[in-house]
This record gives sequence, structure tokens and C-alpha cells, in this order.
Amino acid sequence: MSTLITPRTLSGFRDYLPSVMLAREEVLRRARDVYRSYGFTPIDTPACESLDVLLGKGGDESDKLVYRVLSARGDKAEMGLRFDLTVPFARFSAQYINELGTPFKRYAMGPVWRGERPGQGRYREFWQCDFDTIGTTSNAADAETALVINDLFTAIGFETFEIRINNRMVLNGLLEIKGLADKAVPLLRSLDKLPKIGREKVAEEMVKEAEVTAPQADAVLALAETAGTNAEVLDKLDAFFAPAPNDRAAEGIRRLRELLAVAKTAGVPDGRIKIDLSICRGLDYYTGAIYETFLTDLPGIGSVCSGGRYDNLASKYTKQVLPGVGASLGVDRLIAAMEELKHPLLTGQSTPAQVLVVNFDAARLGDYQRIARALRAAGVFVEVYPDTKKVGQQLGYAEKRGFKLAVIAGDREFAAGVWNVKNLAKREEAAVPEAELVERIKQSI
Amino acid sequence: MSTLITPRTLSGFRDYLPSVMLAREEVLRRARDVYRSYGFTPIDTPACESLDVLLGKGGDESDKLVYRVLSARGDKAEMGLRFDLTVPFARFSAQYINELGTPFKRYAMGPVWRGERPGQGRYREFWQCDFDTIGTTSNAADAETALVINDLFTAIGFETFEIRINNRMVLNGLLEIKGLADKAVPLLRSLDKLPKIGREKVAEEMVKEAEVTAPQADAVLALAETAGTNAEVLDKLDAFFAPAPNDRAAEGIRRLRELLAVAKTAGVPDGRIKIDLSICRGLDYYTGAIYETFLTDLPGIGSVCSGGRYDNLASKYTKQVLPGVGASLGVDRLIAAMEELKHPLLTGQSTPAQVLVVNFDAARLGDYQRIARALRAAGVFVEVYPDTKKVGQQLGYAEKRGFKLAVIAGDREFAAGVWNVKNLAKREEAAVPEAELVERIKQSI
Repeated sequence: MSTLITPRTLSGFRDYLPSVMLAREEVLRRARDVYRSYGFTPIDTPACESLDVLLGKGGDESDKLVYRVLSARGDKAEMGLRFDLTVPFARFSAQYINELGTPFKRYAMGPVWRGERPGQGRYREFWQCDFDTIGTTSNAADAETALVINDLFTAIGFETFEIRINNRMVLNGLLEIKGLADKAVPLLRSLDKLPKIGREKVAEEMVKEAEVTAPQADAVLALAETAGTNAEVLDKLDAFFAPAPNDRAAEGIRRLRELLAVAKTAGVPDGRIKIDLSICRGLDYYTGAIYETFLTDLPGIGSVCSGGRYDNLASKYTKQVLPGVGASLGVDRLIAAMEELKHPLLTGQSTPAQVLVVNFDAARLGDYQRIARALRAAGVFVEVYPDTKKVGQQLGYAEKRGFKLAVIAGDREFAAGVWNVKNLAKREEAAVPEAELVERIKQSI
Repeated sequence: MSTLITPRTLSGFRDYLPSVMLAREEVLRRARDVYRSYGFTPIDTPACESLDVLLGKGGDESDKLVYRVLSARGDKAEMGLRFDLTVPFARFSAQYINELGTPFKRYAMGPVWRGERPGQGRYREFWQCDFDTIGTTSNAADAETALVINDLFTAIGFETFEIRINNRMVLNGLLEIKGLADKAVPLLRSLDKLPKIGREKVAEEMVKEAEVTAPQADAVLALAETAGTNAEVLDKLDAFFAPAPNDRAAEGIRRLRELLAVAKTAGVPDGRIKIDLSICRGLDYYTGAIYETFLTDLPGIGSVCSGGRYDNLASKYTKQVLPGVGASLGVDRLIAAMEELKHPLLTGQSTPAQVLVVNFDAARLGDYQRIARALRAAGVFVEVYPDTKKVGQQLGYAEKRGFKLAVIAGDREFAAGVWNVKNLAKREEAAVPEAELVERIKQSI
């Protein structure tokens, strides 16, 4: 006999077992419905892209994370696995935008791969679930992005969460005033670390990495730390820029104010959206609105849906300027949070079926499948046990998986035209005439 | 300015544009619902597996198709992309079966990768959509597999299709009688080519490759070509084996007969399931029931859902014997067929939304999103146009994408408390009071 291969996943990769996978499918289904309800349309791109499409201009941090894939003959590595859904979307947009027309609203869901050191909650394969509106600079799309995030988490079943918004134009306006516009990238990269390393270390890093003076770093941090209610923050911002008006900052403030007004009129609950001038996302890619989303009961897990506005999506592949705005749901992080919060979507059940038809008499298999199909036609999910094992064993199986009901019939029941319906949780049993079975079962699940 | 990278997909890979992707999502949604309705539960495994998990004992045909993936540091190729969903499922089962218990019914959906020469309708990345029941040898699971296939294609909207079934035990019984049991693998591999190369060439190949005599090849082909109604074929089979009864063949015939009886009692339409003794699937992996599915209006595209029973799923990874049965929906082939057949799921629409709210007055954006959210809450999918372009331009956008209705309101309408509802196909327009809007729109879509 040949040696057995140890069954295992690779480091940083994982399997989804039924109970978690049922929750993931439900999260994706609800996300899909929300995105669709706003007119976002699905697209899909391959897992593998040409390396020149995928890689930056060289030396980029993300380039080091790209998995190279050898051609099947094994000699050439000309392609790689996508590390996010944005780069493929940029390539896709450049390729088809004339055919598709603008504005173009798309969502995409799928795994991405990064050769990072695996850690708690950090995997080398994980799911993203993005939505974007491209081909418009309108603030209507920025406001809508916040509405989508609100409806998305509401649909998944969260009641307490906070969408934090910012607009990079505000900070960029300040940098223009201070003559620091060319230092935006390292300054923002440092600022992004504020919740992790604290004010003092960020200031130090700004001085060191961005080569600004301590008072300059302090001014950036002072702006970022402006606190208060949304109205207070907006007033403080007006005051902050009042002595030296700056067009960019003024437009950023206007956009934040309008976004909040639209959300209010559209019915988003008060307190749901909060201006937070310290959030900026590390990426230099973003140029306007910034979004992060925190679960009130588990803020420590970090933002579970983040995004922002960008000036030009696909400049690497086309001269056509494609501004846009969008966000990405971190599916795996969200599901980890849901497990920790004992979210009702993680039911502990490992079957999607509600009813088990006990296989009592092998000669009656046709009848078992007949009644199962009648229930399925009425929207009830039904499994027929494949083997004629002892009834107790079959009921044990049903309880372990999380079935709600079991139905049993042998010769006596078939002669009487009834089915025994067992409620597994309540441990109740009733004989139900076949004509009433579908209705009765629909009522009890 | 830096040189632009040509946006393109790699040879053998492709993008899904909105109209096709909308259809694919719908096919997968319906498949998921049918699988779930039978108690199959979802699992997912990584795209990448360790090469020793993925590869055969060496020299296997499928090994040559495996894409190797380099570690992120780029020096080692220890992992590869899965080329089907069966090998990962085997590995998964060996790893968790004690935790999960048997019988275990799972479905899995996702892309697989094969480094084949691309051709018409043959891609290097394509989607599979498998369901399997493992841990039982019961014919109940074999019969159920046919029921699932029937309900699956019915749910996707096909009315005319044929599920062809066979059972390898019948042919294996014949081979036992003829003393050819050890030649089953090359004989079946040749037989599998019958529809492609015809009887004469198959017979030649059997003589050459399996080293059987011409009369032996002829006996195998005679059995495979047994024709007639299901009842006639079953009778002919009884007669065929009557002079020299063989246990294996008898069990195969019994299983085919029972499967048909169960399907009839369960309500599968007559003529839907057809015994075809010539189908055997090339793989030596299958040992019992065999399934293929043909669209009556496009048989030339080949089987769109195929599978069978196997004796031992995971022998490479565990000593635990895991018999099972299952089938795989060829999603991409099916969608190609649906495009050719102008299936109603391929609507030509490129948006999931039904209603466009025209952005007539930028100051009213909150109201546009308010009415859109009221419609969304009622299950209507609504897009708000982001820019205040000319109404004609916005309506042109709506028509091109396939929206059904547009709603428009400016100062006059807001003052009167009405919305103008435009039916884009009928080119009708009506002023509807806001209180009636949701109901009226639900009626007209």
C-alpha cells in the first residue's frame, strides 16, 4: 500500500466548514442584494493576471506580496494571482469602458491572495467584496457610498455600527497652505498609524520620514484630532481655515456637509455617520472622501468596510481619466467578528435543511422522495436519510446537524395516510394526514 | 509620462461582463437553492493546495495541467492551483470526516484552473459547481443525484433536457464473465470515445490499447449499444446476463431499475431519465452509477452536468473508506449554451436595477435618495443618477442599460407632491402622488 499523504491546508490558507460557510454565503447574498438594489452590477475577472498588469513600477510594497504562477509547462512565471480586486477592476475598466459607458457601477466578490506572514485573523487567501462607481466626480456618488455601507450592515443584521468619514481634500488643503503638498504621501502614511502607535510616535515619524518641522507635524495632527459632534467639527473646520481660505479644503468641507445632509434626508439614523478627520487610509491612491466602518461592540477588530474616492482609477492602462468612489467589505474579518459576537447568522447549524425524512423502509424510498419534493416545492429544505439505519441513529444525526423536524412513516402510517412529525427541540410528536403535511410543516419551521 | 500597459486578459482567461455575469449569478443562486433544498451544505477550500496533495503518483495526465505557484519570495514551487473540486474535497473529507460525521452531503462552487491549450469554449479558468453525498453506498443517494439534476435544470428554466444514466457494475460484470476485469480501465477509456470517433475506431482501439480480441471488443460494444426504452433495455440486460448470471451485473441492473422507480414515484417527468449503456466517463475513479445531462435543443455542446458513484474518495489521504456519489454542473459550458439558445436568463440587460431616479436638481439629492431607499425597502432595485446631466442623456443611459422605469421630479413636482414616472419601453408618462409611488412602481415592473 502506498504511503498516505497527510491531508492539510497550506500555512495561511484555510477551509470553510459548513456552519461558517453557511454564514459566509448568507453575508454575500445580502451584500449582493444591497449592491444590486443601488444599481451596482456584477462583474468577474480571472484570478490570474499578467505580471505587467499586476505589478507596480517596481519596488512597491504590494509587489512583494504577489504570488507568481508558472505556466503549465513550468518554465515561465508571466502571471500572478491578484492581490486585490481594484487592480483587476482598473484593467477591466480601461479595456471595456467605451463599451460599457459611464457612469459605471460594479460590484465584485472573490478571493485575493497575498504572500504575507500569516497571523491571527490574517490569511494568505481572503475574500473581498467591493463596490465602486466610476466615471463621475459627483458628490452624489460619495453620499451614496455611505448609504450603501449603512444598508449593507443593516441587512447583515447589525444594529450598532459607525461609519467614519473624512475627506482628504481637507487635509490636502491644509498641506497646500503650509507649503507641504509634496509631502502628503509620507504624512498620510504616518497619520494612518495614529490609532496604533499614538500621537507622539506619529509626530516623531512625520518629522523623520516626511522631513517636516515639529510645529508642522503638530498642525497636521491638530487638524486630524478635531473632535466633537459632526456639526461642531464642521464649524471648527470652517474656523480652522477661516483666516486663510483654501479652495480645496472648502470643497472637502462642503462635500462632508452635503453627504451628511443627504444621509439625514434619506433616512440614515442619527449618529450612524461620524466625521473623523484622523482616518485617511494609508494608500496615496485616495484623493477625496474616505470611509471606515466600525462595529460598536467590537471596535478593536478594526474597520470592516473601508474605501474612498480616487481621481484616476486606470492611469496605468489608459489615458482616459476615470474618477470614482467605492468601498470594500472585508468578508473574512467581518465573519471573524460575527463569530466573536455570536451573531445570529452563525446559528451553529451545519445543514441548510430544516426537515429530515427518516429512511424507515427501503422499499418506500420513492414515497420519501415524493414527500420531500412536495415540501421542497413549497420552499422547505428537506433531506432524505440515505440508509435504513435505526430510527434513533437517524434522529441523532438530525439533532447533531441542527434539523428542526423529522418526519417518519412506515407501513402503519402509509396504511393510515399519515406521517409522524417529530419536533426535535421540543421533543413533541404528532401524526399528520398527508394532505395537511406541507402546511403543518411550513407553520412549525 | 510612463508607457501605458495594454489592458488585456491572459490567453485562456476571460472577464465576465455585466449581462453574462448577471446570468451566472442567477444560475449559481438557483443551483445553491436546489442543492440546499436537498440538504447539501456548502464548504469552501483554498484555490492553492500543497503539490503533494494535488498531484497523482506521477505521470498522470492531469498532473501536466496543474499550475504551480511560487512562494511569495519566489524561490519555491510547493503549491499549485486546484484543477477540480474533487481532489480538494477528498483532502477536506480525510481531514474533517470524524468531526463532520457521515453521511456528509456537500456542495462547492468556484473556479478551477487547467493549463490546457485554450480553444473555443475551453478556458484555463472555469467554474465548477459540485454536489456529493459521501459515507454511504445506498442506492437512495444514487437516485437522489438524478432528482437533484432534474430539479437543478428545471430551476434554471430548462424544460427539455435528458439525464442519461448508466451503472458501471453492468459493464464490469460482463468483463468479469469474459475474464477481462483487469482490462476495465483501457476498455472504458476507449468506450468513452464512442460518440466522438464511432464504433469501428473504438473497436480497433480496444484491440490495440486493451489487448483484447475483436470478438471481446465486440461483446463490450454490443452491451454498450443496447437500445430501446428504459423498460426494454432493462429486459434486454436481464436476458443478456441470463445464461451466465453475475452478481455485480445483477446489482447494477437492480440499482438502475430502482433509481427509475424512485424517480417515477417522486414525480420526475417520464422520458427525463434515460438509460444509456454507452456512457461511462473516461475516469477510472467511477465504479457505479454514471450520469450525463444533455440539453435537447443543443445536444452537440455535450454533457452539462456529469458525475457518478465512486468506491473510495480519499484513499490517498486516509485509510477510512469513503464511498460516495455526486455530479458537477459545468457552469461555463451551460452559460455558453444559454447564450446560444437565447435563454430568458440572458436578458440583455446590463443592470440589476429596474428604476432610475433622474438627477434633475442637485439640491434635491437627499430627496432622490430618500425615495430610492423607500423603493429599495419594498424590494425594488433603484439607481440614482449621480450627475445633473440633461434629462435626455440620463434617459438614454437608462434605456441602454435596460432600466424599465425612470422617475423624475423638479421644483414643480416637489411643490405638487408628485413624481413623474416614465415607462421606458412603452414611452408612457404619468404623474404619481408620492404616497402611491411605491405601490404603483411595484405594479409596473
